[in-house]
Amino acid sequence: MPEMRKDPITNSWVIIATERARRPESELIEGNSLDEGIPHDPGCFFCSGNEYTTPPEVMAYRTEGSLPDKPGWSLRVVPNKYAALNMDGNFKPGNSNKGLKVSGYATGMAEVIIETDHHSKNIALFNNEETFVVLKSYRDRYLVLSQEDAIEYITIFRNNGKEAGATLIHPHSQVLAIPIVPTNVQNEINGGKEYYDKSLNCIYCDIIENELKEKKRIVYETDNFVAFAPYWSKTPFETWVAPKFHSARYEVLSNSQLEELAIVWKAVLHKIYVGLDNPPYNYYIHTAPVRESPDKYYHWHMELIPKLTMAAGFELATGMYINIAIPEDCADFLRDIPVR
Amino acid sequence: MPEMRKDPITNSWVIIATERARRPESELIEGNSLDEGIPHDPGCFFCSGNEYTTPPEVMAYRTEGSLPDKPGWSLRVVPNKYAALNMDGNFKPGNSNKGLKVSGYATGMAEVIIETDHHSKNIALFNNEETFVVLKSYRDRYLVLSQEDAIEYITIFRNNGKEAGATLIHPHSQVLAIPIVPTNVQNEINGGKEYYDKSLNCIYCDIIENELKEKKRIVYETDNFVAFAPYWSKTPFETWVAPKFHSARYEVLSNSQLEELAIVWKAVLHKIYVGLDNPPYNYYIHTAPVRESPDKYYHWHMELIPKLTMAAGFELATGMYINIAIPEDCADFLRDIPVR
Repeated sequence: MPEMRKDPITNSWVIIATERARRPESELIEGNSLDEGIPHDPGCFFCSGNEYTTPPEVMAYRTEGSLPDKPGWSLRVVPNKYAALNMDGNFKPGNSNKGLKVSGYATGMAEVIIETDHHSKNIALFNNEETFVVLKSYRDRYLVLSQEDAIEYITIFRNNGKEAGATLIHPHSQVLAIPIVPTNVQNEINGGKEYYDKSLNCIYCDIIENELKEKKRIVYETDNFVAFAPYWSKTPFETWVAPKFHSARYEVLSNSQLEELAIVWKAVLHKIYVGLDNPPYNYYIHTAPVRESPDKYYHWHMELIPKLTMAAGFELATGMYINIAIPEDCADFLRDIPVR
Repeated sequence: MPEMRKDPITNSWVIIATERARRPESELIEGNSLDEGIPHDPGCFFCSGNEYTTPPEVMAYRTEGSLPDKPGWSLRVVPNKYAALNMDGNFKPGNSNKGLKVSGYATGMAEVIIETDHHSKNIALFNNEETFVVLKSYRDRYLVLSQEDAIEYITIFRNNGKEAGATLIHPHSQVLAIPIVPTNVQNEINGGKEYYDKSLNCIYCDIIENELKEKKRIVYETDNFVAFAPYWSKTPFETWVAPKFHSARYEVLSNSQLEELAIVWKAVLHKIYVGLDNPPYNYYIHTAPVRESPDKYYHWHMELIPKLTMAAGFELATGMYINIAIPEDCADFLRDIPVR
């Protein structure tokens, strides 16, 4: 039966409509080939030896004795050369003309995390240690960028595959530090607060507790972290990873916690890669805003959204999604894929 | 300078960052060829002579004496064969498990408006009369579908080009009647109400008045309708069309009003087609919900969103957009393109 499900955090609805998958014209976006690619491309801005083509690095994990902006690194962070924001001006939204034309300086920072010196290794083929290093760099950049007064939120995300917006092959994530709390995070905080005010519970903790009990949407778990398909998944194979313990902030994870998280995250990326033939996807971290303290009712998590279907006029018009797959089926499928 | 602008209706922010357009890797999605295509394809479900391949028509504009589901029509409406919703069950969201798993039957109707019997004529090449017929069909289906008790909102939208989600070439729009008011419309209504409660004015009327005074973002206008680039445009060449007079409901437009609207809409489609080489785009109507009465503070409008850049991880994570073009420049460019 065609079903609608509600995101209990933001109160938005999703249509689960497997009928649509039968359309003769509905082609899933194709996955990419499953090879490890080439280790080095002399024409790549992000490859070792070409450090001079990027702005000077702001952080790197390097072999002892190697010099900044020279080879010898395993992960390297550089300012985005084509940044959407910068720190040259102050965001102070004016309020003119009855509030109809409000603007401000786009104050912020944009960085690129070059995750490996390997030119085109798929992140799903990183081992646990390499995955840990990427997750650690997310925390480390967060802790540095959040020191700037003007920054209210730090978005860390990754585009995998051309169809998901990746414009360079070399494995990289992006960090955008911005002067406001973005809509999607604010909506989650508002929903969390509303639930907390009624129940004194964290809505995410309650959702996770229920998922662990029902088991139907679990993809993978360790003692402290769980990967699951949300009941209200917006797209086929949408997968969330969250701590089983209550915590609003990704950035307070310890190294040993990050090591355990890396096992879960690597498992998710690998299952998606193998099961769906390296599909395009985006993932991002939702953590608490830098200055606000929603610590009792917010709960950090990572969201991975495969791009197997295309959002079009309906989604733009309504802000609602039509999901052509049942989340329980997607979780079943991913759960059964062994992690190499 | 990199700038942020605020949508005064929904209070969401957009980053206007022309720097990003200079990225070596940023390729605009290409437009399609500018030809009129082929008038008839015997293999097309929507072409004349193949009426038996669709579910029976629910409405058609036909030459006198022609029979339903036979040739002789200029526009034909049929149920979507692969509908995401149907009227076989009732949407009644249960509330179990602390409200964490709320679902309901996806009650509704999905229809396809086949806009012409020409197999592949671009809608931008429709003349004023043909454009009027399409806009009229939107109103007419709205008036019929809104009679069903279970329907709370009717979304009318169009996907132009494969990259914007169109899966069949034959010109068509889609109608989805759904049992809830969707997020994006509800957010506009809430914003409109908040502004009205403070000012006793319609926020859309005030925005339009200001646009007509400033003239910098106007694309086209007639006595009663105006096309403009919103100050807070999310994408390059985003274009809105709205009545200059206050009205919450598209569906109450008279035939003569629709004739005038068709002149503006045809001008917009034609300017976009010629100026941007037939780019992929989506458009949709935002009108008031079927049962609610936000008539004092809502104002119907059409939104056209070209798909020249790709929303990716940042947009998914935040719900915010990075627009690489300045709305005033886009309006200038479109304004200068003569309408054939």
